Amino acid sequence: MESTTRLLLPEVTAALNTDPTSLVELTEEMLPADLADLTSALELDLARTLVRALPVEISARLIEHLDEEFRRELFVDLVSEALPTAVAITDEMAPDDRADLLGELEPEQRQAVLADLDPEESKDIRTLLAYEEDSAGSIMTTDFVSLASNETVAESIEQVRRTAREMETVYSAYAVDSHGTLLGVVSLRDLVTAPETATVEEIMNPNIVTADAEEDQEEVARLIAKYDLLALPVVDRTHRIVGIVTVDDVIDVVEEEATEDAQRMGAVEPIEQPYMTTPLLGLVRARAPWLVILFVAQFLTGAVLAHYTDVLGLEDPERVVATAAMLMWFVPLIISSGGNAGSQSATLVIRAMAVGEVEPKDALRILGKELAVGLTLGVLLAAFGVARILFFDELTSVAAMGMTMAFSVMGVVVVGALLGAGIPLLLERIGVDPAVSSTPFIASLVDIAGLVIYFEIARSLLF
Amino acid sequence: MESTTRLLLPEVTAALNTDPTSLVELTEEMLPADLADLTSALELDLARTLVRALPVEISARLIEHLDEEFRRELFVDLVSEALPTAVAITDEMAPDDRADLLGELEPEQRQAVLADLDPEESKDIRTLLAYEEDSAGSIMTTDFVSLASNETVAESIEQVRRTAREMETVYSAYAVDSHGTLLGVVSLRDLVTAPETATVEEIMNPNIVTADAEEDQEEVARLIAKYDLLALPVVDRTHRIVGIVTVDDVIDVVEEEATEDAQRMGAVEPIEQPYMTTPLLGLVRARAPWLVILFVAQFLTGAVLAHYTDVLGLEDPERVVATAAMLMWFVPLIISSGGNAGSQSATLVIRAMAVGEVEPKDALRILGKELAVGLTLGVLLAAFGVARILFFDELTSVAAMGMTMAFSVMGVVVVGALLGAGIPLLLERIGVDPAVSSTPFIASLVDIAGLVIYFEIARSLLF
Repeated sequence: MESTTRLLLPEVTAALNTDPTSLVELTEEMLPADLADLTSALELDLARTLVRALPVEISARLIEHLDEEFRRELFVDLVSEALPTAVAITDEMAPDDRADLLGELEPEQRQAVLADLDPEESKDIRTLLAYEEDSAGSIMTTDFVSLASNETVAESIEQVRRTAREMETVYSAYAVDSHGTLLGVVSLRDLVTAPETATVEEIMNPNIVTADAEEDQEEVARLIAKYDLLALPVVDRTHRIVGIVTVDDVIDVVEEEATEDAQRMGAVEPIEQPYMTTPLLGLVRARAPWLVILFVAQFLTGAVLAHYTDVLGLEDPERVVATAAMLMWFVPLIISSGGNAGSQSATLVIRAMAVGEVEPKDALRILGKELAVGLTLGVLLAAFGVARILFFDELTSVAAMGMTMAFSVMGVVVVGALLGAGIPLLLERIGVDPAVSSTPFIASLVDIAGLVIYFEIARSLLF
Repeated sequence: MESTTRLLLPEVTAALNTDPTSLVELTEEMLPADLADLTSALELDLARTLVRALPVEISARLIEHLDEEFRRELFVDLVSEALPTAVAITDEMAPDDRADLLGELEPEQRQAVLADLDPEESKDIRTLLAYEEDSAGSIMTTDFVSLASNETVAESIEQVRRTAREMETVYSAYAVDSHGTLLGVVSLRDLVTAPETATVEEIMNPNIVTADAEEDQEEVARLIAKYDLLALPVVDRTHRIVGIVTVDDVIDVVEEEATEDAQRMGAVEPIEQPYMTTPLLGLVRARAPWLVILFVAQFLTGAVLAHYTDVLGLEDPERVVATAAMLMWFVPLIISSGGNAGSQSATLVIRAMAVGEVEPKDALRILGKELAVGLTLGVLLAAFGVARILFFDELTSVAAMGMTMAFSVMGVVVVGALLGAGIPLLLERIGVDPAVSSTPFIASLVDIAGLVIYFEIARSLLF
């Protein structure tokens, strides 16, 4: 809870229970995001009372800034209880936000709102809703300034002045021909600094970065970040401008994609809602598949261990039993060192690919680097491992066991580093999101490789 | 490599070797980010030739868009070989970018450039360099539009028009009194829509969001994202405006912070440079500390295993040896299931805290949720575990072993989920970055807890 909210909450709650309209004055001075914070801290029915009491244009800004889940619940009640208010607020909202909001409603509720809206607005919303989730079309807004290329600067400034209030941004305007084909971009900075009689065509920058409406939102974010844009125009197949994505939406996309990657790397299927509002079943569904896959994969470790118990037991029953038990004591230590080294490599490589620093074609150089890093880290850990053996009271054959430890740790760490870097590269190469090669997934694979390395070295040194 | 770069590279390389000035025309049409891409694809000496051949203001934009490492190398050579060009380019660069660039140079080189710069610019750079890394002051720019509060709109527009070219953004201007104290914000949108005779004071919004110069860049990014700002004013202790942070820098901060979190969660100390340009030793230094800590922590698993071999061996030497071996086979399976469940919980909770969805004070509700999720997942995995026992050929006492498996998996998964969620919450509560409770760290802790749970259950059911 932000401090503004904490300060105002008692006063606002009291006013909502007695005289809601007294809040109009108080909230007039507040920034929409702070007002949304305050609203989220209220009980749902009081929040609804507040939204109904405020002027429609303030409620619209407020709702635009609410969290998805709270916003949906609030709006669902508003549609059932006060449809005209809900429609008026929808009408005032930014095209992208209101399409998102209506998209979250049940079909009947959505229909009720759409039916009462101005037909043109209603059509606009339907168009936006038709774009695939996470596409440029789904996050763009349709309120942007388009200027005829033969207009003068003076006419353009007048147009901007007239329409400024409704636009998501007026800082980038788009020059179009009579068919709506995008010809260039004109910034408000260019407009105010250009001579008044120049035409749009003369001052526009024809070198424009655009996205197709079907483009993935991650690519849209990458382009806006790369070219430091305030807005990116979205075009259809005939290069007509259909909307713009503004930079403030991109920050949300970057955060969202980072969350998805983090969750995949933690072996969780991305959850759509915030953690706290995701129901139990949603969390189980996001986690169970990977947990089961990893669990079943670990079945192999049992088979490998049973195999080596057998193999080693065949040779000298007397001595072997004690040695086998002793070997078992270090299994978690050995295999986890490989898993940890692998997790580190996977994290570095997956993140470097996510931000575009490396590509699968760099694989050889990356694996070379990981080999060198793995060897260095392996030697370091081996030293600690040998020290552990020297200070372990219950051991027999300390020298052989120390060597087994040293070579195993080195081998396991190197294999871990190579698999950890190699598997994400391979997945990216074959078109699978490399983040699915989660830290636990790499660790499980390395566990199995680690056991084989460890017991093969033990077998040749200890038996 | 972007397609523009791939297309132009041969032509540009040829021109650089024969007639570098012929490139001026070609590159005039290019966007700075594309020009930077192209430059990065060249050999360092050709890149330097290109930068020297282009007009200073184009080279400045180009250098602003280069990757940190390439930019530093290029500039170091430029300072030694062509100091006047280096100084002229520095003079043209945006204040925040050039302070970053000079900050990366050796002190003598930095001095050489600063000494030849205009004294005022030089002082400005020194001031920016004095701010702590990752503070608002270190990422802000000092080129912003400030308007006297008693100016008229017409005068302000004229001022914006005159200074637009040098400013990072003209879309947010800041109203100040005669001492430079920040009074309000005026958008260019407000200016072009307001009557020409109104004063700045009349049209400004006095309700401003600001950051102190010492504020962490993560908080700056959070504020810009929350309030959908194009720029955030940075103030000193007396509320005088000292700079602004623009939204395009925030995207970089969000990406950088996500990378740092991802690396910490993968048990890697954040590396400052891109993976490919980080030297071997840098990678080892980022990875060795955690790897060693985790390795030493795993020493405990050996002690626990040795302990139970002892304890169990005391009771019935004949039967025990086979049973103990059998128990050992399932150690990696059991402990990894707890580690994986814990990694999932940690990922969800750490990310939810990073984006501000949950706080330590939600701990009880989160742990309640994890208990329920853990139990559900535990029962599910237990079913697979029992199936595994039934199909494992080498086992004796299948019924008791099946029960041991079922109860152990349930217990370990529940403990994993609780520790995975609880430890990050605890760390955040005591002021430590929760991302350091990396996936491997949680897994290691759960390994030890898992062994104790498994052997205690085995001891009461099997012996």
